[in-house]
Amino acid sequence: MKFICSKSNLYNGVKTVQRAVPTRTTMPILECILIDATTNEIKLTANDTELGIETIIEGEVQEHGIIALNSSIFSNIVSKLPDNMVTIETDENFKAHISCEKAKFDILGKSGDDFSYLPFIEKSQGITISQFSLRDVIERTSFAIANDDNNKLMTGELFKINENNLEVVALDGHRIAVRYIELKESYSPRELIVPGKTLKEIKNIIPGNVDDNVFIYNTSNHIVFEFDKTTVVSRLIEGDYFKIDSMLSTDYETKVQINKKELYESIDRATLLVKESDKKPIIMNITDSNMEVKINSYIGSMDENIDIEKDGRDIMIGFNPKFFTDALKAIDEENINLYMINPKAPCFIKDDNGTFIYLILPVNFNAIAN
Amino acid sequence: MKFICSKSNLYNGVKTVQRAVPTRTTMPILECILIDATTNEIKLTANDTELGIETIIEGEVQEHGIIALNSSIFSNIVSKLPDNMVTIETDENFKAHISCEKAKFDILGKSGDDFSYLPFIEKSQGITISQFSLRDVIERTSFAIANDDNNKLMTGELFKINENNLEVVALDGHRIAVRYIELKESYSPRELIVPGKTLKEIKNIIPGNVDDNVFIYNTSNHIVFEFDKTTVVSRLIEGDYFKIDSMLSTDYETKVQINKKELYESIDRATLLVKESDKKPIIMNITDSNMEVKINSYIGSMDENIDIEKDGRDIMIGFNPKFFTDALKAIDEENINLYMINPKAPCFIKDDNGTFIYLILPVNFNAIAN
Repeated sequence: MKFICSKSNLYNGVKTVQRAVPTRTTMPILECILIDATTNEIKLTANDTELGIETIIEGEVQEHGIIALNSSIFSNIVSKLPDNMVTIETDENFKAHISCEKAKFDILGKSGDDFSYLPFIEKSQGITISQFSLRDVIERTSFAIANDDNNKLMTGELFKINENNLEVVALDGHRIAVRYIELKESYSPRELIVPGKTLKEIKNIIPGNVDDNVFIYNTSNHIVFEFDKTTVVSRLIEGDYFKIDSMLSTDYETKVQINKKELYESIDRATLLVKESDKKPIIMNITDSNMEVKINSYIGSMDENIDIEKDGRDIMIGFNPKFFTDALKAIDEENINLYMINPKAPCFIKDDNGTFIYLILPVNFNAIAN
Repeated sequence: MKFICSKSNLYNGVKTVQRAVPTRTTMPILECILIDATTNEIKLTANDTELGIETIIEGEVQEHGIIALNSSIFSNIVSKLPDNMVTIETDENFKAHISCEKAKFDILGKSGDDFSYLPFIEKSQGITISQFSLRDVIERTSFAIANDDNNKLMTGELFKINENNLEVVALDGHRIAVRYIELKESYSPRELIVPGKTLKEIKNIIPGNVDDNVFIYNTSNHIVFEFDKTTVVSRLIEGDYFKIDSMLSTDYETKVQINKKELYESIDRATLLVKESDKKPIIMNITDSNMEVKINSYIGSMDENIDIEKDGRDIMIGFNPKFFTDALKAIDEENINLYMINPKAPCFIKDDNGTFIYLILPVNFNAIAN
């Protein structure tokens, strides 16, 4: 095998596929990037068997061939090469000779026979969404994915397609994040549960241009994201996702309109006084035109007032401050509406256009101690 | 106590003195910053008993007093305050009330009675050096300070003053870094061994302006650095520093003039093929007008050629690549001179003006295997 390509193309390609290389594995072949120049294209692939990424880089193939190179060694070398054309040449013993200007490296590769290629997915009935929208919706929901593996379904996100509506849902048992997107075309209905790790990697490698699209295909077990010269193939999480519609009540006893930045900064400051392990709630004491935000921990106390517009009853309610700041970070609007029923029922943050719903369960607190 | 100051002044002051707060200690008072407003100045102090930092911040004292506040809690709170005027008020129970716009915090402090104040140092015969020069000389030498505590003297740097000459030396048994600075005035001779940790913190907090000065005072046990509104007091390391003059031979058998950037980048790339623990040397094979730089490890091999100008004998010599790149990073010159005697004697990197000498011991290597 012999090919020539620019350092920047090679570097970007390696960076992209490298995200599918597992950090810990007992199978050395999984630590490799497969460089496939058996046709006139230079194709890089990495695959941890759950998630696989493939990308085609521009360059000139001078001799067909294939090799698997250790991902971390190869990417380190590529990153340090001068910004010029790179030549990679291999011999029959799978020694790869990498040269760029005066820099010349020899590293030992593998045949690639053991490499687990990406599964073949028939590309039919693909969904089209802009790169920007896909990245944006992942950013605005994925924080609510559960961190632990106790419930496999909670480690993924629901992508629910019905005609031209895409609903994306993440939840972890304490909160729910829902975003609604209108697609340009209509599609047959389907519900796909995509692993959180896959979405995290996609968010990192997708350029995110408004004018460029991602094409999404699926089988019953796999999902494929295709954009630019890159293909991401991931297993889907099996099972039926939670029925969240019944949880998204529209009743409320108290509605609060508040400046998002003021609320965010106030809660953010309050978190200085709590350690994660404390589980100290932030208390919102909502009266006419005022929200008192207070917290009381062994470190100290904080008490602030924020102007609000209120409809309905006064309420005093407590929350895990992180759940609230996570949701507020995912909202762009200057002013937001909070809907509450009572101190034991979930609080909803919703917009009037129906583009998002964030549900946060309150926590119990001792009203006298606080 | 009650005073008012800007958030940025307070923040900068806290950031400065915080560097003397130990990361681990069994004495809670050492984790505190002392805020002293017993006069009309607001003085912040932290002291880990080896290193103490004191700084005066601008502000208006409205009620005299003193309090010790936990450094990490206090600095976290200050960092999150809005960018406006901050009021700090304490009561007789050492509760500190911190307020800024709508943000209001109460945290519990300590009396400060147990606080270990900075030792009193008589300020006579002070040495004056520009902030820029002091920071610069620390940056260009301190990498050669030993990391481990096996030899206490090696954990510090020698500051040797003789008339208007300042010589700064760091060494770790494998290399020596020496910088010579001409001072504006002449001083009585002295040799001070300053702990590496002190120099690291000074490098971080000193603004480094060419036109602003640092005043350095010392007793037999302590050194004081005074700049702007900040005073750093540190213990000195006791003992007689190594006599390095006898090690700095001026003989050579081979002199090489080489482009620093080319050599640096070549060795930097070579380090990709070695892990720290490997102790694989980089081999320089120096012949007329060419330096071959090569390395051979279980990961792979590298072989590059760099144009040089050579005086004297051909030589093949091996080095720990990190020692070489560390020294090259500390040199600004475009072209540098290397002086060598034989593959077992130290290599010197020196300039013609006598402003620096970097000595690096070579390592043994198996010439046949490489």
